[in-house]
Amino acid sequence: MPLSEHDHGWYVDTHRATNYNLTRCPGLLDQADPGALLAYHHGNQPARRLVVLDAKVNRLYGDRITPWLHRLGTPFETVVITPTETTKNRATVDEIHATASRMNLARRDEIIAIGGGIVLDLAGFAAAELRKGTPYAAIPTTLVGLIDASVGSKRGINQCGRKNYLGAYHPARTVLLDPGWLATLDRREIQAGLAEIKKVAEMVSPQLLALLHEHGADLIESAFDHGAADEVLRLSIGGILDHLADDLYEEQLCRWPDYGHTISPAVEMATDGKVNHGEAVNIDSSFSGVLAAQRGYVRNDYPRDMAVLSHSLGLPTYHPLLHEPEFVTNALASTVLTRGGAQHWPVPAITERGHRFIEDATPAELRSAADTLRDLTGASA
Amino acid sequence: MPLSEHDHGWYVDTHRATNYNLTRCPGLLDQADPGALLAYHHGNQPARRLVVLDAKVNRLYGDRITPWLHRLGTPFETVVITPTETTKNRATVDEIHATASRMNLARRDEIIAIGGGIVLDLAGFAAAELRKGTPYAAIPTTLVGLIDASVGSKRGINQCGRKNYLGAYHPARTVLLDPGWLATLDRREIQAGLAEIKKVAEMVSPQLLALLHEHGADLIESAFDHGAADEVLRLSIGGILDHLADDLYEEQLCRWPDYGHTISPAVEMATDGKVNHGEAVNIDSSFSGVLAAQRGYVRNDYPRDMAVLSHSLGLPTYHPLLHEPEFVTNALASTVLTRGGAQHWPVPAITERGHRFIEDATPAELRSAADTLRDLTGASA
Repeated sequence: MPLSEHDHGWYVDTHRATNYNLTRCPGLLDQADPGALLAYHHGNQPARRLVVLDAKVNRLYGDRITPWLHRLGTPFETVVITPTETTKNRATVDEIHATASRMNLARRDEIIAIGGGIVLDLAGFAAAELRKGTPYAAIPTTLVGLIDASVGSKRGINQCGRKNYLGAYHPARTVLLDPGWLATLDRREIQAGLAEIKKVAEMVSPQLLALLHEHGADLIESAFDHGAADEVLRLSIGGILDHLADDLYEEQLCRWPDYGHTISPAVEMATDGKVNHGEAVNIDSSFSGVLAAQRGYVRNDYPRDMAVLSHSLGLPTYHPLLHEPEFVTNALASTVLTRGGAQHWPVPAITERGHRFIEDATPAELRSAADTLRDLTGASA
Repeated sequence: MPLSEHDHGWYVDTHRATNYNLTRCPGLLDQADPGALLAYHHGNQPARRLVVLDAKVNRLYGDRITPWLHRLGTPFETVVITPTETTKNRATVDEIHATASRMNLARRDEIIAIGGGIVLDLAGFAAAELRKGTPYAAIPTTLVGLIDASVGSKRGINQCGRKNYLGAYHPARTVLLDPGWLATLDRREIQAGLAEIKKVAEMVSPQLLALLHEHGADLIESAFDHGAADEVLRLSIGGILDHLADDLYEEQLCRWPDYGHTISPAVEMATDGKVNHGEAVNIDSSFSGVLAAQRGYVRNDYPRDMAVLSHSLGLPTYHPLLHEPEFVTNALASTVLTRGGAQHWPVPAITERGHRFIEDATPAELRSAADTLRDLTGASA
């Protein structure tokens, strides 16, 4: 019963239904009838659309995106965003809302986000707040966007000097996946995306890990125009979705997708984004792998194998911040606040599911892992 | 199945569980062990608490609230707020977040809101955004707070010159209901609360309507220290909960609780809150009653009966704004945007459920209703 009355008051027990599609759309911008991709089986069709568009994507593809949007057949306005950790803030969200107000966007109209992870975060969070939740569609244009940011429901912005301090769980109504965007992506951004794919591989998919060993370097060279690309994307997205579909709203704060995300937020913030998200994730996962080896959760040569793989993917495994006094312990303390007071530190493990969680990492253990990782990085570079 | 993979991608179909308690707590501030009221059967107990407190309540009850908070046994900090339609904005939410950051509030710690509807909106919306959702408890201290703001899940702030333009569905984890606060409430605020109770009565509860006719004036005189108070509160809260428990997230935008809320937001904004929320709601519901009578949905003398009841409750039934050119049509157009492009205008009706919805109100019909209401108000005053 959703409502029960008792002697001292009432108890409400209900739930909110959520569903969304992720659709492979190769050649997206060439589609003659893109409206069919955004036609929904439920809910109103939008009368207007607000498009939040990455500035670089606009420069490279604007002359094809504009006619594509016109082919949708609904009036639209566009907000162009230059995504950085600094613009991932309240002021940019305010700009999106001001445009929505000016164009009289209605409650069941639609926002379309076209860009990488930061653009998806900004547009999705703005949509979550607007009129208590406005639908949006996500068109990821980066590798991180394709296999991570667009897949789940988390949308955040930075505030109070804290990464993703404000946010919402607000999945896109539909996600249109086209790896064609990667042709013009910076090599470094493809490498960053591979760090998140490697995360999934280490945690839940030996098959994906084998594909990375075999084809990782080629995937970078070809910008994913390669025979293994579809399977790598499918295993990576499917691997995360397997987890998210059971806990899209993070009732559990002990989550393997947080692998590589324990001390990496502090690395990103401390370097002001110079170490990008994927690079920071790989430094963190390399560090976490050493922690796991120290405890005997993985074989001793696991960290070295991962360092070799990282090297082949052009990903860093160490940063001098790890040896600054208190840096790692402070980073952990900050993350503990986001995990409800516990460490819940995901690490690889030789168990059936490929991972486990550390709850009692000590400063001495962390210092030792930093030393080992520094030596290992020097040796494998 | 929460996740299904198909030829062209994936479909996620899941839901988010929500539950909360509303508990009657007469003599709340005298409770020796208030922690028991905030002990949850699920989830972590908070390590810290952030209290968002109404400035007037703080003046009147601060010397009892502080020891009550200390009896909870957890460290806390307090943000004191002067609630107006102008402070119901981003800057106040920012202040709450800055305090949360300074005190290192963790993700499953707790916010406590003590105040009326605006304080509950500000604290609840700040909680919704903070770390993608921080739990909070609501202690309503006004009549509108007790029977309306604390009961549901909607939390909003004003932005872009639009009322509740930003918001979230984020119900309090627990609501502690004590009518004792009403002893010090301004008479006008009690009257405003009765406008929302009258709304519920007109829409779904002839029994509650009869109680208002019989005891309304006495409830005001006694500030709800009256034999009929408990039953009036129970029927009013239970009446709204019956609706909300089935659609807490407003999948349906055609909602009877929106009765009195079609043109009232414009009245509140245009008078800068000088006509308060309950008064604006009563002007709107009076206007809606005339519309219903014009269409034959209620008997001809229904609007006059409601005007007499409103008069006995000290509530206005008309405002000269209703005769300003375009005011009503513009107000309606703005509300149509929040209702997904449809009027969905709730009005009373002689049907089994006591209400129906108008979808095709015309400017001529609205002008005629304004004329009738002005005459009626003059006659019944």
